[in-house]
Amino acid sequence: MESISSALSALSIQTEKMVKHAAANSPESWRSAVADVATSLGFPTSNYTKTVVFKPKTAKTATPVPVVLIAKDDSDYNTNSVAKHLGHKEMRLAAPELLKEFLNASKDDVSALSITKENASQLVAVLDASLATSTDHFAVHAASSEQTLFMTGAEIAKYLQSTGVKLEVIDFAKLKAEAATPVAKASAPPSSSASAPGSTQGPIPASSKASAAEAAQILDAEQMGITVRKEGDFPEWYTQVLRKGDMLDYYDVSGCYILKPWSYFVWESIQAWFDAEIKKIGVENCYFPMFVSQQVLEKEKDHIEGFAPEVAWVTKAGSSDLERPVAIRPTSETVMYPYYANWIQSHRDLPLKLNQWNSVVRWEFKHPQPFLRTREFLWQEGHTAHISLKEADKEVMHILDLYRQVYEKLLAVPVVPGVKSEKEKFAGGLYTTTVEGFVPTTGRGIQGGTSHCLGRNFSHMFEIMVEDPDAPEHIKVKGRAKGKGKGDGRRKTIEEYEAEGKLLVWQNSWGLSTRTIGVMVMVHGDDTGLVMPPRVAQIQVAIVPCGIGVKTTAQEKDAIWDACDQTAKDLKAAGIRAKADLRDNYSPGYKFNHWELRGVPIRLEIGPKDLEKKSVVAVRRDTKAKTSLSVDNLSESISTLLDQIHDDMFAKADAEYRSRRKVCEQWDDFTRILNDKCHVVIPWCEVEACEDEIKKRSARQATQGEAEDEKAPSMGAKSLCIPFDQAQFGDITGKKCPQCGVDAKRWTMFGRSY
Amino acid sequence: MESISSALSALSIQTEKMVKHAAANSPESWRSAVADVATSLGFPTSNYTKTVVFKPKTAKTATPVPVVLIAKDDSDYNTNSVAKHLGHKEMRLAAPELLKEFLNASKDDVSALSITKENASQLVAVLDASLATSTDHFAVHAASSEQTLFMTGAEIAKYLQSTGVKLEVIDFAKLKAEAATPVAKASAPPSSSASAPGSTQGPIPASSKASAAEAAQILDAEQMGITVRKEGDFPEWYTQVLRKGDMLDYYDVSGCYILKPWSYFVWESIQAWFDAEIKKIGVENCYFPMFVSQQVLEKEKDHIEGFAPEVAWVTKAGSSDLERPVAIRPTSETVMYPYYANWIQSHRDLPLKLNQWNSVVRWEFKHPQPFLRTREFLWQEGHTAHISLKEADKEVMHILDLYRQVYEKLLAVPVVPGVKSEKEKFAGGLYTTTVEGFVPTTGRGIQGGTSHCLGRNFSHMFEIMVEDPDAPEHIKVKGRAKGKGKGDGRRKTIEEYEAEGKLLVWQNSWGLSTRTIGVMVMVHGDDTGLVMPPRVAQIQVAIVPCGIGVKTTAQEKDAIWDACDQTAKDLKAAGIRAKADLRDNYSPGYKFNHWELRGVPIRLEIGPKDLEKKSVVAVRRDTKAKTSLSVDNLSESISTLLDQIHDDMFAKADAEYRSRRKVCEQWDDFTRILNDKCHVVIPWCEVEACEDEIKKRSARQATQGEAEDEKAPSMGAKSLCIPFDQAQFGDITGKKCPQCGVDAKRWTMFGRSY
Repeated sequence: MESISSALSALSIQTEKMVKHAAANSPESWRSAVADVATSLGFPTSNYTKTVVFKPKTAKTATPVPVVLIAKDDSDYNTNSVAKHLGHKEMRLAAPELLKEFLNASKDDVSALSITKENASQLVAVLDASLATSTDHFAVHAASSEQTLFMTGAEIAKYLQSTGVKLEVIDFAKLKAEAATPVAKASAPPSSSASAPGSTQGPIPASSKASAAEAAQILDAEQMGITVRKEGDFPEWYTQVLRKGDMLDYYDVSGCYILKPWSYFVWESIQAWFDAEIKKIGVENCYFPMFVSQQVLEKEKDHIEGFAPEVAWVTKAGSSDLERPVAIRPTSETVMYPYYANWIQSHRDLPLKLNQWNSVVRWEFKHPQPFLRTREFLWQEGHTAHISLKEADKEVMHILDLYRQVYEKLLAVPVVPGVKSEKEKFAGGLYTTTVEGFVPTTGRGIQGGTSHCLGRNFSHMFEIMVEDPDAPEHIKVKGRAKGKGKGDGRRKTIEEYEAEGKLLVWQNSWGLSTRTIGVMVMVHGDDTGLVMPPRVAQIQVAIVPCGIGVKTTAQEKDAIWDACDQTAKDLKAAGIRAKADLRDNYSPGYKFNHWELRGVPIRLEIGPKDLEKKSVVAVRRDTKAKTSLSVDNLSESISTLLDQIHDDMFAKADAEYRSRRKVCEQWDDFTRILNDKCHVVIPWCEVEACEDEIKKRSARQATQGEAEDEKAPSMGAKSLCIPFDQAQFGDITGKKCPQCGVDAKRWTMFGRSY
Repeated sequence: MESISSALSALSIQTEKMVKHAAANSPESWRSAVADVATSLGFPTSNYTKTVVFKPKTAKTATPVPVVLIAKDDSDYNTNSVAKHLGHKEMRLAAPELLKEFLNASKDDVSALSITKENASQLVAVLDASLATSTDHFAVHAASSEQTLFMTGAEIAKYLQSTGVKLEVIDFAKLKAEAATPVAKASAPPSSSASAPGSTQGPIPASSKASAAEAAQILDAEQMGITVRKEGDFPEWYTQVLRKGDMLDYYDVSGCYILKPWSYFVWESIQAWFDAEIKKIGVENCYFPMFVSQQVLEKEKDHIEGFAPEVAWVTKAGSSDLERPVAIRPTSETVMYPYYANWIQSHRDLPLKLNQWNSVVRWEFKHPQPFLRTREFLWQEGHTAHISLKEADKEVMHILDLYRQVYEKLLAVPVVPGVKSEKEKFAGGLYTTTVEGFVPTTGRGIQGGTSHCLGRNFSHMFEIMVEDPDAPEHIKVKGRAKGKGKGDGRRKTIEEYEAEGKLLVWQNSWGLSTRTIGVMVMVHGDDTGLVMPPRVAQIQVAIVPCGIGVKTTAQEKDAIWDACDQTAKDLKAAGIRAKADLRDNYSPGYKFNHWELRGVPIRLEIGPKDLEKKSVVAVRRDTKAKTSLSVDNLSESISTLLDQIHDDMFAKADAEYRSRRKVCEQWDDFTRILNDKCHVVIPWCEVEACEDEIKKRSARQATQGEAEDEKAPSMGAKSLCIPFDQAQFGDITGKKCPQCGVDAKRWTMFGRSY
């Protein structure tokens, strides 16, 4: 008893009122034995638990894993439904021998407390959700028919978790009902599942909200696992996956988050790859200060207009007010370019290609979302200067292709490369290219990374210029006498500079942020947690020792432990990020859940039979498929499998994204496609006013047809990009813009977006 | 003429007033030809230049490099002194043939303007300092005895630089005087050369200042080069070396600097090495937000007291005031530890080892110094939690040794590892270990990196604790019932927690910053600029094509160019960071200067003779020693040479540092040793009051004996560290502290410091 008491105490569960009584061999005798005591202690007299042990039907040679079912004593359950739910064909009541062997108890003794850290790994526990969530006290045998404790349902659940047993919390009532009508995954209306915080959608009517919430619940979710469905309550799912998957923690300054090693490793992987690639084309890293003076920040008006409301200002140091407040960079164009004007004196100083890995601050007041919209975020920003537009163009496209590869080759996330419309381009730039991602669950697009050609707007403002080596000699001579400046206080036009033989440099800027990580999670994660793409997973292979029962000798156990350890070492030597999970205090089931939540691409199970057969069982996280792999050439087969997982994850996401890009040539179809959580590709006129109109009309129509209600809750569609691959959508000749009827220029992808 | 005009115009030198006149074949005829014009244009009539061309004595087979000497026409110079200064045995007036061949001019035509980009690489120009620095206008032949221009001396210097000619600015008057008495390098008094900005030293008397300034000037400095001696005006030297060596640029927010690629590469090299090392011991990287709430920041009082006056506060976003201002982290103890309290729930969660590469802000109001004292700086900060002091101790020492290796193995900078005195340790910690560097020029010590054991002070404040796995069972049981908290609002003592079986974790924190780069520059740089340690130099080998004269055929030139290019490729393929400097518009001399300023460890010169001999000339930056290397196995010999350079640089700096650590057992010697720019190692009592007294007394004595003037200008000595290697200083048994006479505990290093 000492050990149960201490286990409960560790969980702060009160054990002082443990009651001894005559052995209770039936519900009735138990009631009569404890009713009075319950009353005197102030506990309800009608709350009892029951515990029933089943043996699932398995192959004769297999070690059985008994199922311990715990419920309120008046709960109704359907054994077959439970069996099916657990993935068993059939379950039968366990024989007394089995009870003795696994739980060291008779059917009268057995209770939730019969499950201990010692035997937990050999059992599965099933707990009725209505008990698990109850805060009422229930009578529970203290693993003996002669002793009773009073515990709340929640305490029972907490205790079971603490043992490390594989625990399934099942709503028995619902499961019974489902036997006839299965839960419809898509029963939540699209408008509700698309409603992320910060969207412009209004509230959902209470009744539909309630049913959506129900559908969202994962009925067999364990407490440590994800408790809502991805398709049901996406924002809550996202939060849980990030936190329970160990990616991130919340922070006490709003809009800021802690990147834990599990997510930071993804960023390090992106950094390592991208950094090597840009160094190949002569980009050098540097570091500019995070502070900007007001004067410099505000030099380029169009540009700063976009950022001004979000700029954070330092006005005090210690207890002194600063004479001149300084801003924290929201991006570094205006931070860097005054120095480019000094450093670039001749065409021989071109191209100048600098990059920095840093953090920037945009103090948004919209609802923050981890990775997607945060007040401080990590990114790289490249800033380059070129002698010609042609050279600048080439780099813009090269960098964009690197961004595409980050998504596709590292994160297994498909993106559509293209150019932004005039309305959506970077403020102050010439044109913006983008890789556009897609979150299938919400049907919303997400800008994945942008590579801007800034043209000569910034070089004009900051007077970054060289003598044009190709200008005629007489123009050069004329020009040399004239300084940069503005003489009469007026800024010269670009044309005036050209007439003096001066060339304003062509500039690019390009950035990729930790938003990548958010997109990756949203695309791949599932109802069990994260699904990590193999190339950015800090641990690619988790190795779990299995099949250790009460009959296993210490020697046998050691052999399995050693095999796990050695396998991890061998894989690591081959460059695979492997970890043997040799924790002694957790069951295999607990460990499976642990690594599944974190999305580790491959789980290897090694048990006594595997040792005999010189093989291991590999379980893929993405498909949950199991294979047996020979220990010969294991590193090679694991490497191949990791690549296969990457390819399959990409192919799946790519097929999904492609199926959600719908060509639309009639306005009537537009909003319907949008509401089907798809992107709409139209032959577009590229007129800005038309883009505004598309947004307005699609917003209005989204919920209530062509009604004229300006407050319609659904977000309208904006242009996401004009894909570079136009051919895939067919010949555009003669097509009209479905919104305004004007001649179409290019196929353009519209959609709701983050 | 067209080309000279345009070259001048490019430099904004006025050319409109070019005067044509009869050929002037003597000073007299020139004066009479232009005197009237000079008057009418408002230029002085008495300022003329003279240009004399010499041929240095060389081997008959060598291509001569004529010396073009330009001075005021009334300047006096000593040909032999100039020759000697340039490293020539003898110089003779050039024959007319030579003038024609190299300058396409007669002795009457020749002027500064005869030197052009085309012929610059074949010449050396010598300019009198009194002309180079004059803002008066002087008559200059426009490379023809029939034309005259008026240029200021500074414009002449500017023009010459623009041609890329190897240019020596020499003070003729001084050089003549020196022929008898050479300039004493050490003529500046120690107190002046030790006076860095921000030091507590007072002003130097005007007369001594003037002579120091003179001694500081490098008499043959080119304009593009460093113009002061390292030993003469150290602060100015440091600034020039950083800026002209392309490490850093100044920024318009005070106390912030731009790290250019040349210095950022050093940081990247440190990051790559250190990051790999800490990952080996299980440290993981993460990222915490840069913002901290006031409440959290101020939780640990002792700790924050040290930082509070320097904390930058964000109080506004856009135009809105924030409800609660947020601080920018000055360090992350209080940022991170509240989360450690959540993440560490059991002894199985230990050790927790996190690190981040980030920037922190300390808004110091003292005079900023690049790399050494800046308001924002880059660093890594490791924060770890352990189950025992023993384990924490071990890590503290391991990390400190990694810091030592960063200095010694990467930067070739010697450091002394040791422990800080109680007074100098990290506020709120248990003890602080440090690697202490040394700047020989100023004799000041510099803290190179610190690894702190925080003990349990922070875990107590932030309640980071686990159940002690080694506590007796009955104590655990008792303890489990009791929460962390303080129940009655009081914080429990560490002992009270222990009595409940709870273990407050042992913590470390350790940090290394970009200060490393400043130390490296100060230790290795010389009068010609940076001297980069090979392992952190972005370019390790600069390859310069040489020996191309007017007689060189295009084919020969191509062969040299190709050889340089191919050599760079071969070296790069072998993992050596090499660059061929194939710029067409600069002379070899210009390129030599360019790479010397930047401290590139090895310069390879490849000329026609080297091609013939299948060899290259390697010139070491640190010693300026030349060797001829065979092209066979060049990568290997270069690799070996780079390692040799590293070892030699370290050995030299180490010998210097050792020679400046003086054991002192008599107080009478203390301040004298200090004033000799040395560290003082004393057998010390380790009493805090004694440390204060040492500082006060040494400050008072520094300039005026034991006078009682509290405002004595020199900085006092503080304890730098108690070196771990005590044995080197001998047996301390029976020794007394020289300051107070109390029994000494350990040998302790005192000194002035940054």
